[in-house]
Amino acid sequence: MFDDMAKQSTVWLEGTGPEAEIVLSSRIRLARNISGIKFPPAAAKEDREHVLAMAVDVFKKDSIFFKGRILYVDDIDAIDRSFLIERHLVSPEFMMNLPGRGLFVGQDEKLCIMINEEDHLRIQSISSGLTLEDTFDAANKADDYLSRRIEFDFDDDFGYLTSCPTNVGTGLRASVLIHLPGLVLTRDIDNVISWISKLGLAVRGFYGEGTDVLGNLFQVSNQTTLGRSEEDIIESLQSMTGQIIARENAARERLFNDARVQIEDKIWRAYGLLLYARILTSEDVMNLLSAVRLGYGMGVIKEMPLALINELLLLSQPAHLQKYLNKTMDAEERDVQRAMLVREKLNKTVKQP
Amino acid sequence: MFDDMAKQSTVWLEGTGPEAEIVLSSRIRLARNISGIKFPPAAAKEDREHVLAMAVDVFKKDSIFFKGRILYVDDIDAIDRSFLIERHLVSPEFMMNLPGRGLFVGQDEKLCIMINEEDHLRIQSISSGLTLEDTFDAANKADDYLSRRIEFDFDDDFGYLTSCPTNVGTGLRASVLIHLPGLVLTRDIDNVISWISKLGLAVRGFYGEGTDVLGNLFQVSNQTTLGRSEEDIIESLQSMTGQIIARENAARERLFNDARVQIEDKIWRAYGLLLYARILTSEDVMNLLSAVRLGYGMGVIKEMPLALINELLLLSQPAHLQKYLNKTMDAEERDVQRAMLVREKLNKTVKQP
Repeated sequence: MFDDMAKQSTVWLEGTGPEAEIVLSSRIRLARNISGIKFPPAAAKEDREHVLAMAVDVFKKDSIFFKGRILYVDDIDAIDRSFLIERHLVSPEFMMNLPGRGLFVGQDEKLCIMINEEDHLRIQSISSGLTLEDTFDAANKADDYLSRRIEFDFDDDFGYLTSCPTNVGTGLRASVLIHLPGLVLTRDIDNVISWISKLGLAVRGFYGEGTDVLGNLFQVSNQTTLGRSEEDIIESLQSMTGQIIARENAARERLFNDARVQIEDKIWRAYGLLLYARILTSEDVMNLLSAVRLGYGMGVIKEMPLALINELLLLSQPAHLQKYLNKTMDAEERDVQRAMLVREKLNKTVKQP
Repeated sequence: MFDDMAKQSTVWLEGTGPEAEIVLSSRIRLARNISGIKFPPAAAKEDREHVLAMAVDVFKKDSIFFKGRILYVDDIDAIDRSFLIERHLVSPEFMMNLPGRGLFVGQDEKLCIMINEEDHLRIQSISSGLTLEDTFDAANKADDYLSRRIEFDFDDDFGYLTSCPTNVGTGLRASVLIHLPGLVLTRDIDNVISWISKLGLAVRGFYGEGTDVLGNLFQVSNQTTLGRSEEDIIESLQSMTGQIIARENAARERLFNDARVQIEDKIWRAYGLLLYARILTSEDVMNLLSAVRLGYGMGVIKEMPLALINELLLLSQPAHLQKYLNKTMDAEERDVQRAMLVREKLNKTVKQP
């Protein structure tokens, strides 16, 4: 499954959109439940199957908008589940076995709808760069189509009802995936995280936690939705992201003024290792790509376009690597094949000095 | 001084001669003293000046053989002293101030004679590769020329008399500079060193001591000369060197069979860093070049000819770097300029992939 998808990047890693060099992607998720049916974890199997059937019915009826593929989780094998998780199309929890789960993936992967995750429907839209409003529009449109044919659980006082109380209200979770190597290198990151948290947003390492954050990638998202409008949530995240970008850029400028050659050394060494290493773990690649991405942002290195940096970030992950190369491999073999793939992609794209 | 020399490599780093990939150089040193004059440390200044005058007289009279330059140590400034030490033309001790010291350096640097080091004359010959006999011949010829015009301190029972008792007899110290990364990587090096020592040879790290041996370069030499003929000393070192090479090659074969990709990774990462780093200490360069030299020897990497590996080993040293670039620099600036020089030399010589 997904052999076609494995050969291509995904929409949120196109490296386009505003601020795409620092903000990898913007994501919107809307949680919706169907009136009169228990939430998925508590629902009977038949209820979940009923929900799935209703959703599939909408996708088929509104097939011009819902252009893409409908998948049944039971049919997806282990490596394809990892593949979907690595692509951030689904949550890891969603890939656990629970009968009646299904998935809609839009043709360009911008839209993805999980059926019977924690809520009956989780509508997700994701785009490259800082594009929260556009991304919200896409999710919102899908919500409109669905709500024309399905009655959602809605309370006049509270808003949309959801399985987890933190989602009650708009059911909206907006997030950005942001690359903050400058703040990590200047050791300002802890201050910035605590400042963001105080303002009511959640920040976490995107790969790994605490000091083990890989690739200096962080996810910033709203914490609660109750009592706030969609516009309010999105505007507030948009504005905070702008401030984080400003702090990151200030950190980079400080680095450039105070330790320019050290930073350049770090960036070029990373590039040299990507180009020549014969063994690369996915952690290696994430950290090396982080340095190269910083170099791209600072104008130090022009050899690697952003789209390639993003593509390698995606393809280096275990399931992607195996699907891309079309063979099952243990970790040791993957590290060798990963290094080979990175090398080939670089040599193909990059004009050597 | 030495501006011409700074722009070129030195004979023992040509990368030619038998086994030149593992044995960088062969060196012969003959200690000689002049009859009736006290050894230099104990001699009066006038005595040393007399010795120097006698030696210079021979160089001038036999100027066809002694083609090269005559230098007075007092005239050599600090950076040129470091330059000569880095080139292994003189000992660090010789560069300390002691009036009456002089130096002959043959045109191709194969022959070098220190006057008033620990002995009145120290004749040194050095060549690329495992070439002890030829190298000895060159030193021996210089000895013949000198002894025709100067009477050496010679005892019928003991042989040549020298300042330090370990040199009495032939006055001969024969040594090889040998690269043993395979034995270091397989952790067999300590066993090999102890085995060599038991057989009466001295082994020491060429740069640094103990676990801090830089660049996996070792010097193996005879310990004593008393009661042994020149031929015996040289044959014994030649044969031991052959055995060390065999052990090194066996270690490499083991590495190639058991951990091929790890070794290739190490080699290519080193190459990538040499090609892209923006800051390189001389220790960095020594260790990276060691990996690349191993790769050259194992047939893994063909991008860097041996002569270039050797040239960079020489030019990366602080005094060489400054003389080559014709400017005085502190350590921080040197690290940047060193990385730039390595990069330029590589990009000029190497066809990129």
